[in-house]
Amino acid sequence: MSSPAHRVPDMSWFAWGDPEHAAPLPDSVRDLVAQALGVELRPRPPVAEDAVRLPEPALPEPARAALAAAVGPRNVRDDAATRLRHSGGKSTPDLLRRRAGDASDAPDAVVYPADHDQVLGVLEACSAHRVAVVPFGGGTSVVGGVEPERGGFGAVVALDLRRLDRLVAYDPESMTATLQVGLRTPEAEELLAGHGCTLGHLPQSYEFATIGGYAATRSTGQASGGYGRFDDMVVALTAATPSGTVRTGRAPASAAGPDLRQLLLGSEGVFGVITEVTVRVRPLPEARHDEAWSFPDVAAGTAALRGLARSALRPTTARLSDETETFVNAALSGARAEPGCRMVVGFDGTAADVAARRAAAADVLAGAGGTRADTEAVREWRSSRFHAPYLRDALLGAGVLSETLETATSWANLAALDAAVRAALSGALDGADAGGSAIVMCHVSHIYPAGASLYYTVVAPAGADPLARWAAAKRAAGDAIAANGGTISHHHAVGADHRPWMAAEVGPLGVAVLRAVKRTLDPAGVLNPGKLIPDD
Amino acid sequence: MSSPAHRVPDMSWFAWGDPEHAAPLPDSVRDLVAQALGVELRPRPPVAEDAVRLPEPALPEPARAALAAAVGPRNVRDDAATRLRHSGGKSTPDLLRRRAGDASDAPDAVVYPADHDQVLGVLEACSAHRVAVVPFGGGTSVVGGVEPERGGFGAVVALDLRRLDRLVAYDPESMTATLQVGLRTPEAEELLAGHGCTLGHLPQSYEFATIGGYAATRSTGQASGGYGRFDDMVVALTAATPSGTVRTGRAPASAAGPDLRQLLLGSEGVFGVITEVTVRVRPLPEARHDEAWSFPDVAAGTAALRGLARSALRPTTARLSDETETFVNAALSGARAEPGCRMVVGFDGTAADVAARRAAAADVLAGAGGTRADTEAVREWRSSRFHAPYLRDALLGAGVLSETLETATSWANLAALDAAVRAALSGALDGADAGGSAIVMCHVSHIYPAGASLYYTVVAPAGADPLARWAAAKRAAGDAIAANGGTISHHHAVGADHRPWMAAEVGPLGVAVLRAVKRTLDPAGVLNPGKLIPDD
Repeated sequence: MSSPAHRVPDMSWFAWGDPEHAAPLPDSVRDLVAQALGVELRPRPPVAEDAVRLPEPALPEPARAALAAAVGPRNVRDDAATRLRHSGGKSTPDLLRRRAGDASDAPDAVVYPADHDQVLGVLEACSAHRVAVVPFGGGTSVVGGVEPERGGFGAVVALDLRRLDRLVAYDPESMTATLQVGLRTPEAEELLAGHGCTLGHLPQSYEFATIGGYAATRSTGQASGGYGRFDDMVVALTAATPSGTVRTGRAPASAAGPDLRQLLLGSEGVFGVITEVTVRVRPLPEARHDEAWSFPDVAAGTAALRGLARSALRPTTARLSDETETFVNAALSGARAEPGCRMVVGFDGTAADVAARRAAAADVLAGAGGTRADTEAVREWRSSRFHAPYLRDALLGAGVLSETLETATSWANLAALDAAVRAALSGALDGADAGGSAIVMCHVSHIYPAGASLYYTVVAPAGADPLARWAAAKRAAGDAIAANGGTISHHHAVGADHRPWMAAEVGPLGVAVLRAVKRTLDPAGVLNPGKLIPDD
Repeated sequence: MSSPAHRVPDMSWFAWGDPEHAAPLPDSVRDLVAQALGVELRPRPPVAEDAVRLPEPALPEPARAALAAAVGPRNVRDDAATRLRHSGGKSTPDLLRRRAGDASDAPDAVVYPADHDQVLGVLEACSAHRVAVVPFGGGTSVVGGVEPERGGFGAVVALDLRRLDRLVAYDPESMTATLQVGLRTPEAEELLAGHGCTLGHLPQSYEFATIGGYAATRSTGQASGGYGRFDDMVVALTAATPSGTVRTGRAPASAAGPDLRQLLLGSEGVFGVITEVTVRVRPLPEARHDEAWSFPDVAAGTAALRGLARSALRPTTARLSDETETFVNAALSGARAEPGCRMVVGFDGTAADVAARRAAAADVLAGAGGTRADTEAVREWRSSRFHAPYLRDALLGAGVLSETLETATSWANLAALDAAVRAALSGALDGADAGGSAIVMCHVSHIYPAGASLYYTVVAPAGADPLARWAAAKRAAGDAIAANGGTISHHHAVGADHRPWMAAEVGPLGVAVLRAVKRTLDPAGVLNPGKLIPDD
């Protein structure tokens, strides 16, 4: 068992990431956005921290005593700074509310268990005292997944898993590692690098998201073509529930009934708290290479991705930007804008693997009408790919609304779904009352043999009520996804924000099954109210 | 929508497969077995079909009328021949009972719905009239999965899905096909070949097993290295349950909560009846090549398989026989026996793919101490690989017990698990009372990055009570698997036979979850009693 030497810093209370990495909007971006949206940008700074409105903590004394008995008195905290930093995730609505000084949804306390048994103790105490409990990893949810909802209970606590921070086991023969769930990715990677290994899991939230969060939300990283989705990497897991401990995964594959791993993966803290996962690891890549390709349009680039997805030698990373995203990315990196659609492909592995994959990909891409493009922009993408959330903060600080959403579908349905989502977003966001038009851009990524994901970025004038403005756009996009055969989330999960579409996603009987599992594992219903499963 | 032109014949009532393919024990095998076991082989023919004992059909008239209303009167049958052929699966105990004239477990009737809605109608009728209902695909279960247990109800019907026999849709862009579940594999392949495609799913039961059976039991084929397990191929599925229809799988991958596909895959007819699956298909391979390699021992061959499992260019098929299986296979094919362990690797794909994979595999295998071996035995293996069950029938007819069982675990645990299972089987089967010693042989196959499966074949003197003899061996092996970190089944499923180990497999809370799902989807509890989920 080992813990990381370097710990990831806490995130800002009103913005993404490390406050030291925040930066104002570059002038070039400011000019580009102002021109594209047709609005003048004005500073909209957040309120000061001491002006944020938090409710009085409402945890009854017997509940507090039970929690203190479970985790130790020092590990139950209700100071304002701690509560504020557990008041939700990092969606644009979360940040807009926080920037405006609204932390009315703060938890009544935050508890910090040290291990699996203490998590069991917390769940027992919350069930007995009827206190809602919200599992909290990195706090990076962009779908309201860690919103401290009370769900009819008198109080709610956040269950912060940061003390579960150990590499429990490393099995070099099976190439698996058992990790506690509170590890942030750089911490987990530091521990694995000590054994010459990596997870290869690189979502945009990489620097702050936790191993447990990945499992609970079915996270997918930018290198999914090579390393797989996080749910694919999980060989076994342990979860603490109010009804006791669940352990699943006795073999890499099994025919011993339904796969209960797949019931806990994606369960978003409503069934229990995943405390430990055994995941597949790979050797640290000895070589890495990125390329950029250009395609005349999205259709040609999509056909090329489809070819890559079916190759045994597919790239580690592959993403195709539409014309608008291609233009914006070029502008952001200071490169000369070129017509058409840019594709980035990346390759990790041994030198021989990378060479073989590059050659195979080049055959597919050239065969589909692609041409090699300037790779400067690719280096820029790789060096800045975790920085987009900081850029969003700078835009919010300049009165510009910016948010993302995503879906996935079959290759055959991709173009129709894309058209429907674009129409929904533009229809909701464009309009005289907003004082300007929206930028809607998209990339196709996370390729599978049968389909791919679509990832949208929206930049729009904030208008007088940006929360209402985004809510309308999100509703329109979600309805379009549900009506046009997409999944309501490919890798952001459900949380509170996608819950209205879960009945469409899994049907009324699917919802009934989820409720039945919930009642079995969490009879008091205290776990993460208001998430994932629609209300009766 | 299209149905196959050629239908697969019905299987024998007391043996595997097509009665026309049955053959007596070859003299060479007879001599080999007699010598190895140290017993004299004597004919033990089955009873005549008209001497088989079936109970009187006990379906109450109101239930029969409701079923006739659901599927039409001609599609409810209770003649002895039909009931006998739905009296269970094809495990050795099943065959021993049938050969001895015991069909006391025959269903009271067999119903043949035409489509999804008729399946719903049958489930509704059975729930209303409290009649147990056993979904029946190809009837190839070797774990008691289609045993017509009454489960406390007064009657039981088999629900034969053979009329659900259509290719519903083919999507060339997404490379998926939607198949009804009653299609036997050669029928499905005939329909897919019309579009230049294949499933590539080749379990030993290939000729008679159905698409629905594969989904309901998480089947794995001999080409799993190239085409994946059947549960990996399923993009979407539709199931009829007593509570209504479940449809899952809106995208190739999703973060919209738990993966309910994985709850229905492997559900073995206890939650509902899968009626349609959308599966990944591949182009028919233009090239195919098999190779044989030899390794000094199982440890060296296993290390080689581990290397193959982690290669991007892994073989379509890979299996390593232990020394005994290597010797027996050589003897069966008339080849000269060589020392050590034989590995078969096969490659399907485009000519370029096959060449690249062969080269990559050769590097791994030679690097792990393998040497190329005679390929004559490989051709023999490919041409006869679906014939082992016929050989089992010939052995049973000569008074020799023969059966298989399997498990899977991590690479690190493979040798320890193997030793424990061998010791358990030999301990239970060897002994003075049996009049001879058992042959226990094994192959390692179905390789994954984190582990592999172990597949045992046992040949032993039948003794006076072969059913009791096998029951003791099976119990010892199952206990050894559960105690040594294996899964109770890698690809045979749970059925009735593995149910005693399900609590060890998924834990008491896992069992509670399965029961909760069952209560939601099958409130009357009529679906496939006595399978998968342990009794309260």
